[in-house]
Amino acid sequence: MSAADPARFAEEWEIHRLGQLYARAMDRNEPAILGEIFSDDGMVEGPGFKIQGHTDLLGIPAMLKKQYSSTFHAVHNQTVTFDGDTASGETYCSAYHLTKTGEKTGSRLDWAIRYQDRFVRQNGRWRFSHRRLIVDSAQTVTVDLPHG
Amino acid sequence: MSAADPARFAEEWEIHRLGQLYARAMDRNEPAILGEIFSDDGMVEGPGFKIQGHTDLLGIPAMLKKQYSSTFHAVHNQTVTFDGDTASGETYCSAYHLTKTGEKTGSRLDWAIRYQDRFVRQNGRWRFSHRRLIVDSAQTVTVDLPHG
Amino acid sequence: MSAADPARFAEEWEIHRLGQLYARAMDRNEPAILGEIFSDDGMVEGPGFKIQGHTDLLGIPAMLKKQYSSTFHAVHNQTVTFDGDTASGETYCSAYHLTKTGEKTGSRLDWAIRYQDRFVRQNGRWRFSHRRLIVDSAQTVTVDLPHG
Repeated sequence: MSAADPARFAEEWEIHRLGQLYARAMDRNEPAILGEIFSDDGMVEGPGFKIQGHTDLLGIPAMLKKQYSSTFHAVHNQTVTFDGDTASGETYCSAYHLTKTGEKTGSRLDWAIRYQDRFVRQNGRWRFSHRRLIVDSAQTVTVDLPHG
Repeated sequence: MSAADPARFAEEWEIHRLGQLYARAMDRNEPAILGEIFSDDGMVEGPGFKIQGHTDLLGIPAMLKKQYSSTFHAVHNQTVTFDGDTASGETYCSAYHLTKTGEKTGSRLDWAIRYQDRFVRQNGRWRFSHRRLIVDSAQTVTVDLPHG
Repeated sequence: MSAADPARFAEEWEIHRLGQLYARAMDRNEPAILGEIFSDDGMVEGPGFKIQGHTDLLGIPAMLKKQYSSTFHAVHNQTVTFDGDTASGETYCSAYHLTKTGEKTGSRLDWAIRYQDRFVRQNGRWRFSHRRLIVDSAQTVTVDLPHG
């Protein structure tokens, strides 16, 4: 928590952006992004699953597509602590998992997540090395789908 | 996704701020902000509406005021791609539209939005040229209003 | 709303980070953070409470711990206006207050907050001098707790 330092701000922003690109990879089915934002041996783990390495990580969007009609990952606050070429932090997210139940209706599983993140800098770029999902609370709600 | 570059991050931050100023214009009824953040021929379009040009854009907050007791636009993640003096991106938002139903109770229409945004740089400043609302899902909930 | 200026953006980012550290102090029970992010005579006030000075501010996380099983403060958009060594702004937040009702179930009080914030720069660092909670709307929902 030192005074404003543009260089440090840029690094925090770069790490902040990783969480936003993760959301985009999942919600828009853009698996190639995951290869860019995870280290080679990067891992994601959550309630009942553990996925490691680019081959398997790049398969997550297709898995979500099979299980849900669509997802919506709203990314919120993040605090990060730097330690040389590694860093660790916590990232808040509201993750919605939609299942269509009618032409313009759906059932949505909402997770309030605090990702426990670890980062590594390789070739001058920050990437995720590990994301662990803590699902603080979950609810299922009935929703309307204005665009069908 | 190049390495940390303070100048580029400042530009991303400037664009990020446009979405936050948009929320403020709507929720606090400050239409003048819209004249600052949209290009002269800027457009907003969503389910059932299309609004273009400063005269009409500056009328949106009053329209919302007529239709709802208040609104609350929580802005989340954004990814942007730059192309010279234009840029395009996606901005997540939870938009709450409140209708008072009693002294301390209300009905709230909640939209999970992914704005499809286009931006243009004019006279050294970024502005929206086009915002298209994709409402991923919607629900109506009963709420309490602690302040009345 | 001047053109991109890395130094100004770094300052906005520093202030933005205060809200995120506040969330962490509350949700992870790290009261020492509050001593870092509030001025000596800093105040937080909301519906039915007013808390001023480091001794009392540092007691808030323990108060929340007594009242709720856990909290989750998702921080959203913020707009800030600078005036020399002071600044003021508005910060959006979704604050969840969880009460366990069973081994894997809970009752969650959700607040949609617009903090009315004042900031002061002391010894080159920005801090909160005053946070006022405006709770725009509230609801109580039944939730599942995947981790128990």
